[in-house]
Amino acid sequence: MRKVIFDTDPGVDDAMALGFLCRRPELELIGVTTVHGNADIETVTRNALHLKDRFGFAAPVAQGSGVTLLNRQGSPATHVHGRNALGDIDVPEPVATLDGRRGHRMMIDLVRAHPHAVTIVAVGPLTNLARALDKDPEIARLVQGVVVMGGAFGAHGHTGNVSPVAEANVANDPEAADAVFTAPWPVTIVGLDVTQQAVMDAAYLDRLRDQGGETGRFLHAVSRNYRSFHQKSRRLDGIFAHDSLAVICAMAPELFTLRHGPVRVVCGGLASGQTIQKPAESPFPIGAWDPHPSQSVAVDVDVAAALRLYAETFVTPDRR
Amino acid sequence: MRKVIFDTDPGVDDAMALGFLCRRPELELIGVTTVHGNADIETVTRNALHLKDRFGFAAPVAQGSGVTLLNRQGSPATHVHGRNALGDIDVPEPVATLDGRRGHRMMIDLVRAHPHAVTIVAVGPLTNLARALDKDPEIARLVQGVVVMGGAFGAHGHTGNVSPVAEANVANDPEAADAVFTAPWPVTIVGLDVTQQAVMDAAYLDRLRDQGGETGRFLHAVSRNYRSFHQKSRRLDGIFAHDSLAVICAMAPELFTLRHGPVRVVCGGLASGQTIQKPAESPFPIGAWDPHPSQSVAVDVDVAAALRLYAETFVTPDRR
Repeated sequence: MRKVIFDTDPGVDDAMALGFLCRRPELELIGVTTVHGNADIETVTRNALHLKDRFGFAAPVAQGSGVTLLNRQGSPATHVHGRNALGDIDVPEPVATLDGRRGHRMMIDLVRAHPHAVTIVAVGPLTNLARALDKDPEIARLVQGVVVMGGAFGAHGHTGNVSPVAEANVANDPEAADAVFTAPWPVTIVGLDVTQQAVMDAAYLDRLRDQGGETGRFLHAVSRNYRSFHQKSRRLDGIFAHDSLAVICAMAPELFTLRHGPVRVVCGGLASGQTIQKPAESPFPIGAWDPHPSQSVAVDVDVAAALRLYAETFVTPDRR
Repeated sequence: MRKVIFDTDPGVDDAMALGFLCRRPELELIGVTTVHGNADIETVTRNALHLKDRFGFAAPVAQGSGVTLLNRQGSPATHVHGRNALGDIDVPEPVATLDGRRGHRMMIDLVRAHPHAVTIVAVGPLTNLARALDKDPEIARLVQGVVVMGGAFGAHGHTGNVSPVAEANVANDPEAADAVFTAPWPVTIVGLDVTQQAVMDAAYLDRLRDQGGETGRFLHAVSRNYRSFHQKSRRLDGIFAHDSLAVICAMAPELFTLRHGPVRVVCGGLASGQTIQKPAESPFPIGAWDPHPSQSVAVDVDVAAALRLYAETFVTPDRR
């Protein structure tokens, strides 16, 4: 069983990923840290507490950073995730309460409490991880690994969703992402290259609603407006399984094809937020990538297996 | 018959492209301007004069810029093109002499002499074109079009040859390229997306030598070291038809699939020299691309037809 810290800005697909994470016997959720991103920090933290109530997990929830590593405001994506960031469904006042620690502090404590046994799954801007590294660089040697939903590397022509070259999580705090990707811990990056291959279509989401019990009905409801956004902006009858795919990668990495090599992030200018890997076998001269550790970028995924794994987690055999 | 100004830094594939251009009845070469790039300006200008002697064209050759738009030294590619930039074959002292004008000045004069009738085919760094625009912005309305060999847009995973995201011609003067791509003239960009699809393999080059007469033997000889470079750096038994493909595009655009939308160039930093298009139908918010005219980026090419066209130009029917 893999111990997981889930760093998140819920967020529709964050909620879908967390619901999945809580159901998997292979993964043990030991902490949730919130971060600005899909909405402001107060909204996403309230959502995280609601999800604790709803999914019934025991792990503590700590509020993380409300601004970027350089203390800038992020760019909330309310047009994507709704004003309350949970697709504008009714979210009751949470019963669960916050852990007293700052997000990055709890992250450090949990990693030190379970040396070499914790995987951090980060599905929002990487501010908390960068702050944790800054306060306690040794944690890089103490985690088992880091799985990030973020970035876009141009595989299969997937190049960006907030600019022609930048993905939202990374674009929202490029300096933090660059710090996380160049730190000496093993990072696996699950970017648009694979998440935009994994589409949960209308029939798939309807099946979750009809056969997935109460959680299935919630996942369907929370994703309804998100689906409209995908329909309007991309003429896609379904949604990308962005954050869920990062959880699936933490649990079943064998479903992914990884490319290895150092990764840097463009900070500022035309290409700000672009993630660029120098693949291990590439012929380029020594440059900005080279003193840095090799990381793993997901360039392909067994979409059918990943989506089957997700659905089967909610649709129990006797309901099929 | 299309009047062509050939802006070039010969260069092995420049020589191959110019040899082709001189043979095509559809194209009328009216001027050659040289630019720093594959080697320093003195070397490439001497090579251009040698090619005038060898190919016997009448058009004037003018020396262009030896430094970038911001007066920086470029990065000669002697490891690719050889110390003399013509594959280190023997290059006799030229008999042809230079036009007295600076490259960008002759470019302006020729465009004004033939309004709406000139196509500029640029296969080196874009310094001369940017200087011409700067001195006489009206030429943008007076050319028929501009065809550029440069850049890489990530189509089919072709992303850079001097960094993970940058192509050499653009990286050698990104500010000039950005000025050229954002000017109000129609630019067609033939980048690595298509040129790295078009491989002249060993058998193809041998056929040029055996059946292409004196010019064929020259093209084979000049490309021999270039071939070794491709072999060593990319394990490719052949060469990319970079610059020739730009000439082919000027002559037979129907062989290319074009994508439309404004194009910007990253100037400085990690991604310096990267070319980024915002495709016309993309959902991204208003940004750095939007006040600028739509340009055409080649994302596919009929490789077989393009390579056949090139070879048949040298291999006359009775030699086949």
